[in-house]
Amino acid sequence: MTHFMNRKEDIVTEAIDGALAASGGALARLDGYPHIRVVLRADWDRSKVALVSGGGSGHEPAHAGFVGAGMLTAAVCGDVFASPSVDAVLAGILAVTGPAGCLLIVKNYTGDRLNFGLAAERARAFGLDVAMVVVDDDVALPDLPQARGVAGTLFVHKIAGALAESGAPLAEVAEGARRAISKISSIGMSLDTCTVPGSPKESRIPEGMAELGLGIHGEAGVEQLAYDGARQAMAAMCDRLAQATGGAPCVALLNNLGAASVLEMSVLAAELRRSALGPRITHLVGPAALMTSLDMHGFSLSLFEADAAELALLAAPCGVRAWPGTVALAPDRVLRLPDGLAPVRAMPSAHAPTRAFLQKCCDLLIAQEDDLNALDAKTGDGDTGTTLANAARALAGSLDALPLADHTQLFRAIQQELSQTMGGSSGVLLAIFFAAVGDAASSGLPMREALAAGLERMQEIGGAQPGDRTMVDALKPALEALAQGIGPAARAAREGADYTATLTRAQAGRAAYIGAGQLSGHADPGAEAVARLFEHLAG
Amino acid sequence: MTHFMNRKEDIVTEAIDGALAASGGALARLDGYPHIRVVLRADWDRSKVALVSGGGSGHEPAHAGFVGAGMLTAAVCGDVFASPSVDAVLAGILAVTGPAGCLLIVKNYTGDRLNFGLAAERARAFGLDVAMVVVDDDVALPDLPQARGVAGTLFVHKIAGALAESGAPLAEVAEGARRAISKISSIGMSLDTCTVPGSPKESRIPEGMAELGLGIHGEAGVEQLAYDGARQAMAAMCDRLAQATGGAPCVALLNNLGAASVLEMSVLAAELRRSALGPRITHLVGPAALMTSLDMHGFSLSLFEADAAELALLAAPCGVRAWPGTVALAPDRVLRLPDGLAPVRAMPSAHAPTRAFLQKCCDLLIAQEDDLNALDAKTGDGDTGTTLANAARALAGSLDALPLADHTQLFRAIQQELSQTMGGSSGVLLAIFFAAVGDAASSGLPMREALAAGLERMQEIGGAQPGDRTMVDALKPALEALAQGIGPAARAAREGADYTATLTRAQAGRAAYIGAGQLSGHADPGAEAVARLFEHLAG
Repeated sequence: MTHFMNRKEDIVTEAIDGALAASGGALARLDGYPHIRVVLRADWDRSKVALVSGGGSGHEPAHAGFVGAGMLTAAVCGDVFASPSVDAVLAGILAVTGPAGCLLIVKNYTGDRLNFGLAAERARAFGLDVAMVVVDDDVALPDLPQARGVAGTLFVHKIAGALAESGAPLAEVAEGARRAISKISSIGMSLDTCTVPGSPKESRIPEGMAELGLGIHGEAGVEQLAYDGARQAMAAMCDRLAQATGGAPCVALLNNLGAASVLEMSVLAAELRRSALGPRITHLVGPAALMTSLDMHGFSLSLFEADAAELALLAAPCGVRAWPGTVALAPDRVLRLPDGLAPVRAMPSAHAPTRAFLQKCCDLLIAQEDDLNALDAKTGDGDTGTTLANAARALAGSLDALPLADHTQLFRAIQQELSQTMGGSSGVLLAIFFAAVGDAASSGLPMREALAAGLERMQEIGGAQPGDRTMVDALKPALEALAQGIGPAARAAREGADYTATLTRAQAGRAAYIGAGQLSGHADPGAEAVARLFEHLAG
Repeated sequence: MTHFMNRKEDIVTEAIDGALAASGGALARLDGYPHIRVVLRADWDRSKVALVSGGGSGHEPAHAGFVGAGMLTAAVCGDVFASPSVDAVLAGILAVTGPAGCLLIVKNYTGDRLNFGLAAERARAFGLDVAMVVVDDDVALPDLPQARGVAGTLFVHKIAGALAESGAPLAEVAEGARRAISKISSIGMSLDTCTVPGSPKESRIPEGMAELGLGIHGEAGVEQLAYDGARQAMAAMCDRLAQATGGAPCVALLNNLGAASVLEMSVLAAELRRSALGPRITHLVGPAALMTSLDMHGFSLSLFEADAAELALLAAPCGVRAWPGTVALAPDRVLRLPDGLAPVRAMPSAHAPTRAFLQKCCDLLIAQEDDLNALDAKTGDGDTGTTLANAARALAGSLDALPLADHTQLFRAIQQELSQTMGGSSGVLLAIFFAAVGDAASSGLPMREALAAGLERMQEIGGAQPGDRTMVDALKPALEALAQGIGPAARAAREGADYTATLTRAQAGRAAYIGAGQLSGHADPGAEAVARLFEHLAG
């Protein structure tokens, strides 16, 4: 089994149960399982024209997902890709039709036409006022007198739904639907076929090809073309639609046929806007999965040359979550980048003791490059020494450009330097440390407390706790011992670094993925670097 | 190329352009392409706490799709599955942060923590009040101290978004977010790996297996298990979540990881409700694609043990289309089937001339079975004769049960008989014909006009026009000539049937798929049956 389903026989009733659950009581169903699968508005009072649609399943959220105030009153659900029975349609009609009558909205497939048509006749024998409209929006086969009904049907649901909700009589609702149908055109494209649950996949579309003009039941498209990207795909679709329509402004509906990713659908929305049809499109519905073909990796585009009254009906509020609404297209808003991205460099200033201190630190780290690399090679990728040495070389080379006399500014300047010259997570973490120290110092904290605040921020962001086998194991005890002087701090750092050699499970950083046997007996190279630095400063 | 995209390098910027287009001006972006990709509210006035989130792309609609009033103020978009740069995050913060400050909502991945963390430090150096929360809702790896951040992040966006929108100060917004994070647990499952656009697909999950506890970047799950359907899959997920959570009531978020069909997601919603966790779940978000992993054929389930205040924040209105809202679960509403599905049989009545007429019609159709089959074999599947003869046999056998003395009722009774005994499209079409005739007769039309009304309805539903090579080509002229008597009607039917032999393109019915050469010289078997019937009645 390659789908989230149970028995193939139950997939439609289980999906309806799911839709009911997710509706929170807004939807109800008729007690007709397994053959009569009708979803209807739980709040329906028969006071207005009822709208009934449906057809084969596999097109979710169509049709049950569009049941609600302002769209469908009931949806009749057949098996996957198979028309519902006459009895099922009749049950739907009888369940919702009151004195105002009922409009059936049927997609132009023979089975649906016949079954809905006969159900309408049987309902009329009960004295019910039933009208039927047939949606035939597909332009893929221009010579066929019987065009298929595809995703443009959603426009018809919305137009008729808004009219019915407004209290319009049946004749007016049906006429509004027919008028809309005459102005709707659709075409679809896919990069792969859909898979019917419980059946083997038919791989009809070769890799590198796209199928243009396919229906929504897995039937073959009109042609296969070499696929060369979203822009060309959209151009081919727009070309067909341009041939089939006039030049009037229109609403576009961009429909995910099932398994195109949200990312891809957004790219297609951008291409639609850039396309030859772009200037004609005033409003957009979607991109969204509206009339799917199971898990088809494709999309369809429907155009509706709506007039002002129809635009108002499309925009009328409705109680259907699956309807994404109509958005009036507007020019892209591109805002200026904020100031402050280019770091402001503090004025350089001289301070001999600070300069000497920094030079000493840099010299040590440069000298330890090979040792630290060798240690890292035992538990990691062997570049800790080089990463630190490169940063030290860059810092040593820029000492004269630093605000050495202003320690608060100095920490921030070191952060900038490290951000730019030191790669990897450790570079970002040390930058965070120095930035936070500068932050704390600028708010007036004494140096030792500022350093502790920097460590705390670095731990918070990096997530390393003592005992996690990181530089924190040396740095934290060293900073705590600093109140007693640099000697005790160096001894604490050394103890901490040695302690990391006893830790057989790293909890953070890359060594977290390394086995215990490999780690045992080797200090963490970051902690070792901290210990050697403090020992060097104390010595 | 197997995706709807253009150059791999442009996929994120193009998707953002699409999101902007589909927002109708509600979203804006910073002018920082290609490296700085920040989407923000076009209507933002910095009067409240700003919320900034983001991370790698490929999780659409997260994060740009959740920018809007009541959720995010800005989203910072990295490359596919790669954290955005520190500069990009800083640009986002600087662009939206006013005196009320800014909360960063970060998913717990090292790259995101570090880059958002350093950007926060740099923003603080500008005097901005920036807080950061890290979401770690994934329970797949219970021993890992650093749980990943996955789809439960959406709850945090909504909680913090509603707090910020209400005007709460930064500390309160951050505290609300942290409190929510501590009560959110998630786990994911997939039947297949995702495909990174422009890269070959890694097929890690064998057919028949499912991967449990995967992240949202295509990284391997905690374990692979033999897949045995939606119920078992949901049970495995619920088991993990039950171990990781208490027994409190909770809100469930059912997330499509990308390419599960809407049908499958509905089945999963039904299974969630039936699951061991079902009784704990009071509210549902989705099913919907919220935090995807490109085109992954999988789903994730997040639980949030929300209290009353948090439920109110989740339910607060927001201006974000991708947020599906929170639905309070309610018992399923199952309504009684309507009366009228079991057809009411009219009282039988005797009428010798009508009985003889019907018997004569049936005898003819039974006698012509082989002839009509042979004719159909030349242009179709060779069963027209048998289909009609079987229906005639059934009708002849039920003559004594028919209301022969009440012609209006009789037509409806024949429709019922044909609905039950005659298969295929032709059975439904003839049933529609007789139902419509009965309908017209009951409204007082004379018989000939009622027959014409029946034909009109049959044509409307079936879509066949004169010249389309169907029974209409014989029936329509015959009914029109009936005013002059049965003899002229029979001649008209014969002319019509013969005419169909000259039609080399069928426009409706199965013969529409047959080539001209095969059709030429052979009458349509339905039209031929009509002609022979009228000739028999006239003779």
